[in-house]
Amino acid sequence: METVDKPTVQTFIPTPDQYAWTFGHVPPVAHVRPGELLHVWTEDAFCGRIAGPEDLPSRVLTYPFLNPQTGPFYVEGAEPGDTLAIHFVDIEPARDWGVSTTVPLFGALTSTKFSPTLQGPLPERVWIYQVDRHRRVVIYQALDSDYSVELPLTPFHGTVGVAPAAGEARNVLVPEAFGGNMDSPEAKAGSTIYLGVNVEGALFSIGDGHYSQSEGEVCGVAVEGSMHTTLAVDVIKGFYCDWPRFEDEDFIMTAGSFRPLEDAFRIAHTQLVHWLAADVGLSVLDAYQLVSQAARSPIANVVDTNYTVLAKFPKRYLPSDLVVMGGAHERLRKLGAAHLAS
Amino acid sequence: METVDKPTVQTFIPTPDQYAWTFGHVPPVAHVRPGELLHVWTEDAFCGRIAGPEDLPSRVLTYPFLNPQTGPFYVEGAEPGDTLAIHFVDIEPARDWGVSTTVPLFGALTSTKFSPTLQGPLPERVWIYQVDRHRRVVIYQALDSDYSVELPLTPFHGTVGVAPAAGEARNVLVPEAFGGNMDSPEAKAGSTIYLGVNVEGALFSIGDGHYSQSEGEVCGVAVEGSMHTTLAVDVIKGFYCDWPRFEDEDFIMTAGSFRPLEDAFRIAHTQLVHWLAADVGLSVLDAYQLVSQAARSPIANVVDTNYTVLAKFPKRYLPSDLVVMGGAHERLRKLGAAHLAS
Amino acid sequence: METVDKPTVQTFIPTPDQYAWTFGHVPPVAHVRPGELLHVWTEDAFCGRIAGPEDLPSRVLTYPFLNPQTGPFYVEGAEPGDTLAIHFVDIEPARDWGVSTTVPLFGALTSTKFSPTLQGPLPERVWIYQVDRHRRVVIYQALDSDYSVELPLTPFHGTVGVAPAAGEARNVLVPEAFGGNMDSPEAKAGSTIYLGVNVEGALFSIGDGHYSQSEGEVCGVAVEGSMHTTLAVDVIKGFYCDWPRFEDEDFIMTAGSFRPLEDAFRIAHTQLVHWLAADVGLSVLDAYQLVSQAARSPIANVVDTNYTVLAKFPKRYLPSDLVVMGGAHERLRKLGAAHLAS
Amino acid sequence: METVDKPTVQTFIPTPDQYAWTFGHVPPVAHVRPGELLHVWTEDAFCGRIAGPEDLPSRVLTYPFLNPQTGPFYVEGAEPGDTLAIHFVDIEPARDWGVSTTVPLFGALTSTKFSPTLQGPLPERVWIYQVDRHRRVVIYQALDSDYSVELPLTPFHGTVGVAPAAGEARNVLVPEAFGGNMDSPEAKAGSTIYLGVNVEGALFSIGDGHYSQSEGEVCGVAVEGSMHTTLAVDVIKGFYCDWPRFEDEDFIMTAGSFRPLEDAFRIAHTQLVHWLAADVGLSVLDAYQLVSQAARSPIANVVDTNYTVLAKFPKRYLPSDLVVMGGAHERLRKLGAAHLAS
Repeated sequence: METVDKPTVQTFIPTPDQYAWTFGHVPPVAHVRPGELLHVWTEDAFCGRIAGPEDLPSRVLTYPFLNPQTGPFYVEGAEPGDTLAIHFVDIEPARDWGVSTTVPLFGALTSTKFSPTLQGPLPERVWIYQVDRHRRVVIYQALDSDYSVELPLTPFHGTVGVAPAAGEARNVLVPEAFGGNMDSPEAKAGSTIYLGVNVEGALFSIGDGHYSQSEGEVCGVAVEGSMHTTLAVDVIKGFYCDWPRFEDEDFIMTAGSFRPLEDAFRIAHTQLVHWLAADVGLSVLDAYQLVSQAARSPIANVVDTNYTVLAKFPKRYLPSDLVVMGGAHERLRKLGAAHLAS
Repeated sequence: METVDKPTVQTFIPTPDQYAWTFGHVPPVAHVRPGELLHVWTEDAFCGRIAGPEDLPSRVLTYPFLNPQTGPFYVEGAEPGDTLAIHFVDIEPARDWGVSTTVPLFGALTSTKFSPTLQGPLPERVWIYQVDRHRRVVIYQALDSDYSVELPLTPFHGTVGVAPAAGEARNVLVPEAFGGNMDSPEAKAGSTIYLGVNVEGALFSIGDGHYSQSEGEVCGVAVEGSMHTTLAVDVIKGFYCDWPRFEDEDFIMTAGSFRPLEDAFRIAHTQLVHWLAADVGLSVLDAYQLVSQAARSPIANVVDTNYTVLAKFPKRYLPSDLVVMGGAHERLRKLGAAHLAS
Repeated sequence: METVDKPTVQTFIPTPDQYAWTFGHVPPVAHVRPGELLHVWTEDAFCGRIAGPEDLPSRVLTYPFLNPQTGPFYVEGAEPGDTLAIHFVDIEPARDWGVSTTVPLFGALTSTKFSPTLQGPLPERVWIYQVDRHRRVVIYQALDSDYSVELPLTPFHGTVGVAPAAGEARNVLVPEAFGGNMDSPEAKAGSTIYLGVNVEGALFSIGDGHYSQSEGEVCGVAVEGSMHTTLAVDVIKGFYCDWPRFEDEDFIMTAGSFRPLEDAFRIAHTQLVHWLAADVGLSVLDAYQLVSQAARSPIANVVDTNYTVLAKFPKRYLPSDLVVMGGAHERLRKLGAAHLAS
Repeated sequence: METVDKPTVQTFIPTPDQYAWTFGHVPPVAHVRPGELLHVWTEDAFCGRIAGPEDLPSRVLTYPFLNPQTGPFYVEGAEPGDTLAIHFVDIEPARDWGVSTTVPLFGALTSTKFSPTLQGPLPERVWIYQVDRHRRVVIYQALDSDYSVELPLTPFHGTVGVAPAAGEARNVLVPEAFGGNMDSPEAKAGSTIYLGVNVEGALFSIGDGHYSQSEGEVCGVAVEGSMHTTLAVDVIKGFYCDWPRFEDEDFIMTAGSFRPLEDAFRIAHTQLVHWLAADVGLSVLDAYQLVSQAARSPIANVVDTNYTVLAKFPKRYLPSDLVVMGGAHERLRKLGAAHLAS
């Protein structure tokens, strides 16, 4: 039986002046090496400033100081043209409450800054969710009636990204080819996220902890919360992911982030077709056909600067001996298991 | 214990000259009554003309004679302003093979008639799937290599709709407020579909049997196949569904069909918010918040004249005593169970 | 010098029960022949019911009885696969006032039925415009202040279309391949509109007179008004226009109507490229290049069921001896001139 | 009569190592002051590397080193929250030839990086245009036939922008709220462009000279050429333009750049409505109505990372004594006239 030594763990807890507000053009806060674990804390998307019904977004938040990122981290050995693998070993709420709100002119069911109308904004409201970590639930409580219901606690990071290509710096609310604010529930413990490296060290950062969320993040705000997160990284040399890829025990996945939503869909699914064609050895048309019958296409967000769609392909339909992305997911999973077992 | 008498079953098997090619402006082929079952056979979307690799769509098909519908059926008692409930008791493949193809300038990953470019079409190819009804699988076989894999047999109707509002007649390839070619896997055995009634008798028809399909129906063609289907209907008097609703044992659902894809998303999710607000007694903002954390948003198609997105809400988060849509789903489910048990 | 005999004129003034509410599935009100003129009167899009500030759309209008069409007319000799040419000889206001309004949840700068949000509608207001036919102006008068300004009187028909393909009937508010509610100011006196014929007799109708309008018809309502219109028709045998074409003295034009707006743009411009390639004898890439430097791309509407974009190409960049569409425009123009001169 | 002294002129001709490749995060190459003129030279969008039919984009260009910008320039006195006014006094071709091409997977009538399909790219071709500055024409010559035609020489800058908000750096191919690669023919001699200032000194740059172009820049490439350009700047203190504004002798204009194209339209037109409401003293609904009858809505590009639409309002419909944007256009126009007269 293969054994993995207990890996070393580096811890980084940012102070507020250390938050990153863009992907790109931010100096690293620390260096990490493949083979070691990184433990971080992330503040919630509201910088912790919304803790009760009076803390309205328009009152306590100042754009662009939203969605603070922990990082960026410089990954030893990551060079432009490589792909960075980030594996989430553990993501746990750092608070026993989470928060959601309506934000004026933000969300899928309102006009917005980028889809403007002449109508007034929806009212601002704040919903506080109690978190029961033992029972793995968060508690929804209606504001205008006494209806209450428990929803599953499903912690993940809405935002994970690297420095973009072409010398760009992008606000931390943006998802695109560099990852970023995709708001996909697939960025959960046990998942590996692959991002093409554009600058020396990749310079990745993470944030935007979500305790629970619909597909589409309909109102633009999940059950937002601070997180304790343990992750591990690897570098796939000489291969560059054009768009983000995800992998867990059951699926390989691609993510497209653009507008309109059908273009996000097209990006994710052409990427998946080309991935299957290359790794399974199918013709492009055979891969297109297989994707057409077997893929799943969850919407991740219809609220951010770009919209995000994932294309998921079940591993059980792949050749049983197929190893994708250089086996990084399995390596990192074992590293994480060794840590959790210790 | 409540018992339901074994319902009567009416059978309708169309001849090719009886197929319907539009929703609306087609006289009914038969009348059905709430309380009885209707057994029908549907031809596949290619009129059964594609049975082998030489049967290319451009050679054997003639637009608009695609996607033949069985119907329309006149539902006794259905009047404009009511809602028709159609419950699928049983949907089973009528053949031991299904078929998929690429169709020139049709599909999500090619330019099309409505999203044209100057590029040439993708090659036309035909994939034949063997169907194993006992093991509940269909068999994918690559054309350009020897890769083969079994996919689950999940029969449903891609198309189910009523005569549209405003005196319109719509081609059977179109999904919209009247239902139609939504290509949602939720139109499966055990599901109830609710459609607002626009004309006397509702005049519903069904077709487009799918043996298996991805979300999004990526290439525009599922594993198409002929079906034997048993269904039951009910009429909800005095309530009009603006957009289609679905219900099964686990979810209530709304469907939006339009372009761009974000508008299909917006339609489905505003409909769900208003449904929850009305039936659970929540304020609109409380319903918006609950949907934002608990909804699922499967893409049904990104290939048809309109794109379709569903918004699904788990029944387990609803009040335990809540009855929606006048209890039609439960009534029809019992009717179906009585039939299947007999 | 070529002379044209004074053409005969047929007149048709509909009574309200004769209005058409769909394109398709409506019997003809009259027959017209190429070579004769047709004089018609069209009611305004509000059926004449909004004549003052108290006549709010939500109070006096009943969907789908909006945008009444005069027609359809059966054109002798028009068969499926041909193209109908409609030339507007004269379009003149039939009233000395026009009207515009905001309509709840309709327009480009509000959420709508097909782009819904949870916000409330904008207020309903009515603007009455005085029309000065001699000075060729309409007079804008602000409701909430005393600002007033004269705008040019530029009469045209927002709606002109034929029975659709594939057995469809479409509501008169819809623009698509059959023409319909395109809301293009190019449908003015002196212009010829070409529409592919889908049914015997083509069955065209017109309506939706506009006295003045922006590009895009931003709020969804132009300065609406009743019209006296004289037109002539011709049939181009054996050639079928996939999408509407327009021609006047200075431009040839194509119209695309779909969503999202970029798809309307793509339709119009691929049509123009293929038209130039075919008629000028250019390769497709050479035509693409020429369109890329010389076309104009006015937006016609961003408010209707489909959005409409035109692609215009200046005739002065065409070969001087080029005759397009069988010379129908020039023939009909002369016919109209003979009438006007008489 | 008011006289303006002959203004001083600063000249800046960049060397290739001085080109800017992003808006934002680039140090200034020079400082300019309101009241002086700046004369610059700009290289064409291909860095001058495409001069003949063999110079295919895929062979001679290296992303992201496309569309080189001259700048950025630090404007004395410009602070965040102000608006920068840039007036083009003169824009003249610096070469007697221009060039256009097809670029693989770029353009409005092909699938692209952000609207991908599985189809292959269109062929790459190069069109060289001779420029006749005296007759003010460029000469189109078909590649695959002998058709040739003269098109008007209409020089403008496709790209003009400032450092973006929120700490972003954007590739020079992107248009957005900071201006950038809008590809609007309105950025011509005699026009003033207003851009909100996000960083000290505004840091504007210009490039992408076009000798001629359609609306929409259909294939993604205008008649590209190097330019000699003279401009003047002003700073409007304490007023921040959310989106770009343009002004010339006849129109005030707003620009929206986003996807889908209808959102670019919505941005431009809501901005215009609010501008008119504020400056003319109209209610928002009265301004909406006036825009709905009198605006023009030219499409600028349907090919770039974001699509661009302008909303234009004729000055002749404004109060005759109205001065907008602090009179900057008129001041800068006089400054330019004094220079040209000298």
